[in-house]
Amino acid sequence: MAAVAPLTLYTNKGCPYAQRAVIALKETKIAHDEVEIDLQNKPVWYQPNINPASKVPAIVYGAKQEDKTVAPPGAVKLAESLVLVEFFAELAPDSHLLPADPVQRAKARFFITLVGDKFNPAWNAFAAKGEGEEAVVAAINQLVGELDPAGPYALGKEWSIADTAIAPFVGRLYLLAKNDVGNWPVGEGPKFLEKLDNIGKWEKYAKALLARPSFQESFPADYLLERLRARYNAQRK
Amino acid sequence: MAAVAPLTLYTNKGCPYAQRAVIALKETKIAHDEVEIDLQNKPVWYQPNINPASKVPAIVYGAKQEDKTVAPPGAVKLAESLVLVEFFAELAPDSHLLPADPVQRAKARFFITLVGDKFNPAWNAFAAKGEGEEAVVAAINQLVGELDPAGPYALGKEWSIADTAIAPFVGRLYLLAKNDVGNWPVGEGPKFLEKLDNIGKWEKYAKALLARPSFQESFPADYLLERLRARYNAQRK
Ligand SMILES: N[C@@H](CCC(=O)N[C@@H](CS)C(=O)NCC(=O)O)C(=O)O
Ligand SMILES: N[C@@H](CCC(=O)N[C@@H](CS)C(=O)NCC(=O)O)C(=O)O
Repeated sequence: MAAVAPLTLYTNKGCPYAQRAVIALKETKIAHDEVEIDLQNKPVWYQPNINPASKVPAIVYGAKQEDKTVAPPGAVKLAESLVLVEFFAELAPDSHLLPADPVQRAKARFFITLVGDKFNPAWNAFAAKGEGEEAVVAAINQLVGELDPAGPYALGKEWSIADTAIAPFVGRLYLLAKNDVGNWPVGEGPKFLEKLDNIGKWEKYAKALLARPSFQESFPADYLLERLRARYNAQRK
Repeated sequence: MAAVAPLTLYTNKGCPYAQRAVIALKETKIAHDEVEIDLQNKPVWYQPNINPASKVPAIVYGAKQEDKTVAPPGAVKLAESLVLVEFFAELAPDSHLLPADPVQRAKARFFITLVGDKFNPAWNAFAAKGEGEEAVVAAINQLVGELDPAGPYALGKEWSIADTAIAPFVGRLYLLAKNDVGNWPVGEGPKFLEKLDNIGKWEKYAKALLARPSFQESFPADYLLERLRARYNAQRK
């Protein structure tokens, strides 16, 4: 375990943003405590004492924290998954989560903007409304254009912040499509996956993401499938 | 001038995102060339050769570029204002644009997420539709809560990526409100500014942003006012 100041992660096992933080903590091996936050029944102390935005992930960092319901004097509170991922990467430079070369860092951050601006909105819309398959394909084409030619990860040999940012969402997309859970015509999910896996280096990249231990250990597939099935069945027309 | 590899910035004097990149280049004193892109009449080579997203700002970096219409072999193409700001900051660590302390970096990045997720959507909606003044006030309250108590900048004494990210937008908001250019009832612009300037440390912070030479030198107020007047007058009901 990398030794840094005391750190508590507030997380939820169903949340893809929180999973980014968990993956980064596993990759960096930073010693920390975890507190599971029930989002359906949020503890009353969470918003006032830990995160004013009332979301997970969030952390309390820098001072010994006996009572997890409050940040002790001298501790900082931080939130936003991508901010936390970069923060953990900087606390543990030996993890190579953030590459040393500024150009590689810029490429990783650009890849991450594509995830948030293109890939996630596209597949979410497709899963929720069965619309916009072309937008998913376009987003994946753009991501593929940014992948290191040798792979297996976005920047090449080393797992980075880019892979950390996308993995939870690729995991959910594959889980939904494989199990045909989504607001698309019955049977379309698995066919859709076949299409995606024919886009250049995408299949190889997606497999590398889903095989990474830090991803697998933080991806409760059965639990997620049950939750997502309930959500999309409720939406299905 | 900080000496790094050859760098060309593709920019437009009316674009707030491009202004972020220009401010960061001024603060870091990185030697570079600039190419002004006419967004109303984009050069045919821009999208295929420089930025597939066809937006400014973008850069070509790392190899001597005689012909600005194409990236030479060995050069990288990068885009997205926030990615570029961090990139320039990393090329010139002595500029302190990116603080040395990981906690301060995380705070700067969190502040920047508030700018993109809260502050910009709120004041844009207010200017375009005259609706949601409360959302602007709420966003500014949140930003104020993140400011360093001593100031004058977001993180304290040193101008950082946080100030760089917000300044172009604060500049435009103040320009509009002072000149009463926006889709709000006539006369409301200046009154709105008074309200904002009563929010805790906001007035002091906004003044510090707008007084910074790197901001002033990249903010063509008369040109912008004319353009924004045309845009909002067209929208006015
Ligand atoms: N932009 C945030 C998004 C975090 C987020 O939306 N988390 C959700 C759960 S996945 C949450 O905590 N929502 C608050 C709630 O459910 O009340 C990040 O990247 O961390
Ligand atoms: N997310 C981008 C936004 C850049 C952007 O939207 N730039 C505008 C001008 S302000 C642009 O180039 N638009 C393309 C066009 O006008 O065709 C960034 O932060 O750099």
